[in-house]
Amino acid sequence: MLTRIDHIGIACHDLDETVEFYRATYGFEVFRTAIIEDQGVREAMLKINETSDGGASYLPLMQPIRDDSAVGKWMAKHGEGVHHIAFGTADVDTDSEAIRDKGIRVLYEQPRTGSMGSRITFLHPKDCHGVLTELVTAAKKDDRTSQDAQEH
Amino acid sequence: MLTRIDHIGIACHDLDETVEFYRATYGFEVFRTAIIEDQGVREAMLKINETSDGGASYLPLMQPIRDDSAVGKWMAKHGEGVHHIAFGTADVDTDSEAIRDKGIRVLYEQPRTGSMGSRITFLHPKDCHGVLTELVTAAKKDDRTSQDAQEH
Repeated sequence: MLTRIDHIGIACHDLDETVEFYRATYGFEVFRTAIIEDQGVREAMLKINETSDGGASYLPLMQPIRDDSAVGKWMAKHGEGVHHIAFGTADVDTDSEAIRDKGIRVLYEQPRTGSMGSRITFLHPKDCHGVLTELVTAAKKDDRTSQDAQEH
Repeated sequence: MLTRIDHIGIACHDLDETVEFYRATYGFEVFRTAIIEDQGVREAMLKINETSDGGASYLPLMQPIRDDSAVGKWMAKHGEGVHHIAFGTADVDTDSEAIRDKGIRVLYEQPRTGSMGSRITFLHPKDCHGVLTELVTAAKKDDRTSQDAQEH
């Protein structure tokens, strides 16, 4: 069951400049930064608010580290902007299978590890009215702490 | 001070079909629907979660009612997808003026009335790394109830 807007993923050309824009304009501070090899991006995570399901809503800013990464290829076509949105669930495995059974293309065979020790998968934007949609189960807090230590 | 992701605005060709997609796929139900004459859209608001600042995060689905509306023109170029994102604040007037003073183009001279009796303004996407960004102050709950009665 999807219970929150987990994040809005923003693609940008220059991560440091974009981080500074969000700090100077809105006062949003970086919660953590990481290189996500699997996605081919350098990412700065801004935490915006906590949510009624015990989670939080984030704004990850992503700069591709390879032109042939999914985000790099997307930016070559679209430029900077909103790359994807994500809904949070307590059980991404069950929810993504149920959605696959409805005929929506789920991009990973099984959910993979995402930022901060989360488990994630993506739904095909052509099956979602043009919106690349991610489903996320956040790590338990203990897992998140140890994952962060690896990422920094 | 911006304290939440207030909403992600999704542009679509067929509102009823898109509402049904979000209901059948994710279980999200329509919180309210309205015609927003000022924006030239028919809108179905999905409420996703509540937020730690006492507000909520929504997913408004928007179908243009006029081809020459801002959303209609945007869709002619981009098709369906994420049209804008919005951050919530207790005081959109003060925050938008402060942001204007930083040299960001604020699209309205003064904030205007948005959905559910809110006060809203928009920032130029070219000044925001490609993201059309809205700032929102939600109505007080009493105002929201009376506004809803007018919109339905």
